[in-house]
Amino acid sequence: MNTPLFNRVAFIGIGLIGSSLARAMTKHGLAGHIAISTRRAETLAKAEELALGQSYHLDAAEAVKDANLVMICTPMGAYEAVAKSIHDTLMPGAIVSDVGSVKASAIKDIKPHLPGGVHLVAGHPIAGTEHSGPEAGFAELFPGHWCILTPTEDTDTSATARVQDLWEAVGANVEIMTPDHHDRVLGITSHLPHLIAYTIVDTADQLEDDTKKEVIKFSASGFRDFTRIAASDPVMWRDIFLNNRDAVLEILGRFTEDLTAMKRAIRKGDADMLEKTFARTREIRRSIIDAKQHIPDVKPGEDNS
Amino acid sequence: MNTPLFNRVAFIGIGLIGSSLARAMTKHGLAGHIAISTRRAETLAKAEELALGQSYHLDAAEAVKDANLVMICTPMGAYEAVAKSIHDTLMPGAIVSDVGSVKASAIKDIKPHLPGGVHLVAGHPIAGTEHSGPEAGFAELFPGHWCILTPTEDTDTSATARVQDLWEAVGANVEIMTPDHHDRVLGITSHLPHLIAYTIVDTADQLEDDTKKEVIKFSASGFRDFTRIAASDPVMWRDIFLNNRDAVLEILGRFTEDLTAMKRAIRKGDADMLEKTFARTREIRRSIIDAKQHIPDVKPGEDNS
Repeated sequence: MNTPLFNRVAFIGIGLIGSSLARAMTKHGLAGHIAISTRRAETLAKAEELALGQSYHLDAAEAVKDANLVMICTPMGAYEAVAKSIHDTLMPGAIVSDVGSVKASAIKDIKPHLPGGVHLVAGHPIAGTEHSGPEAGFAELFPGHWCILTPTEDTDTSATARVQDLWEAVGANVEIMTPDHHDRVLGITSHLPHLIAYTIVDTADQLEDDTKKEVIKFSASGFRDFTRIAASDPVMWRDIFLNNRDAVLEILGRFTEDLTAMKRAIRKGDADMLEKTFARTREIRRSIIDAKQHIPDVKPGEDNS
Repeated sequence: MNTPLFNRVAFIGIGLIGSSLARAMTKHGLAGHIAISTRRAETLAKAEELALGQSYHLDAAEAVKDANLVMICTPMGAYEAVAKSIHDTLMPGAIVSDVGSVKASAIKDIKPHLPGGVHLVAGHPIAGTEHSGPEAGFAELFPGHWCILTPTEDTDTSATARVQDLWEAVGANVEIMTPDHHDRVLGITSHLPHLIAYTIVDTADQLEDDTKKEVIKFSASGFRDFTRIAASDPVMWRDIFLNNRDAVLEILGRFTEDLTAMKRAIRKGDADMLEKTFARTREIRRSIIDAKQHIPDVKPGEDNS
């Protein structure tokens, strides 16, 4: 048997992404021991029932003792508290990483609370489903997906390389970029689409009952795609919008301008503007197909986060 | 062999929906003769190459001669001209129907130009893909999908029943409602989602080149769903927005209000409002699953129009 990449890995939080990574690490023999910590006893019991690790802890400080890798998989709103809680028991030389969808704020919340000699390599696997919780995870979530790592200038390069090895070992393609750039790109490809999907589904939810029933009945025409996106984990997405506020508001401003222009074109009956815009947007779809993105449009693990 | 439902059927326009219906009618032996008419010689040649019918006509007036059923499958912007062009050769007792996505305007554009004794049964199969043209059609587009018929008070009930028989024979579930109600429901479930998808993809298209490349590369996180919707036929969608202007502007107004509230919540860091909204929208997804909509999220033929 191969030597595992990490002797001991601690997971703080074990939802969809954390439990998928734990499963994938077990499947590929990447961890000698997986210690799992959750805030809630109920979630911990579920993780144990699913046999996701070798030890289970309600105290994160205990889970991270002797861990070579600490993977923070909680909602981002808990990052600062988690970092503070593990400060005293982190092993010198340990690597701390995460899977959150906003990187500048992740670094800001975690880094000041890590002791010297501990390496932070923030990361974001672009994978997920609209389901959440430890039971929703699966070992094959990552193959064919990107995982973006956002080391900062002072991040130890060998620590970054080890986290990259981990993600590649579970099947992901790794890309490295700055935290701010990550947040801007994901603000467009993920956060704004989610915000819009949440909003339109909420708009429909406020319709009078009869119409709402029919919207549900005849949803197979665009709207249903939005409902799937808008079924994503509420706490995770709350934290994404709170933590990537500036990038989201900036791209939302552009979108709102463009929407106003479309509205005006419809009101004025500007056929030419509408047709030209709709023809132009087709090209982006072709670029994505040419870029050999996975084309079967929705598979588990492709669209959220 | 069974007697076909219609001795002679004329298709005016033979894009994705028209060619799918022609194929399905042939497969199920529903038409004695299929006459196909298109405005452009190139499309007609393609239809003939695909053997979608038994006769091919550049003159719609000629195609509809002796037809028991005339199915208008052109973009909606052409409806009035089509109706005028076939006025003189429509057979008394013939049924005229269509497949357009807006029903009040379809009736307004077609009905005044039909001779007495010809029955208009406007319809809308809620099926499609982002592909267009006669080669994109397939006989199995309709099973499991809704087709909404919008007869008016003076529509002959036996004509409506015959069109209903046709759609049921090709596998669709038929629902009958008023044109205005159809336009309002589809404005929410289909037209607004398409408008938003077109807009967000256009917003991304206007980004500086480097960011745009990365948006394409990392599109597997919400945005890609939007690009598929925004790859739909530009002329068809231009006509939908021009023809369903009032319903689209009305629901767009509500959406814009809701989006402004979300924006404010993000700006103010209102965690509670965001989480509550995101939790609420999950319920609509559950209702759709409970309503036994097709759940495999995207299959050919499920999402457009």
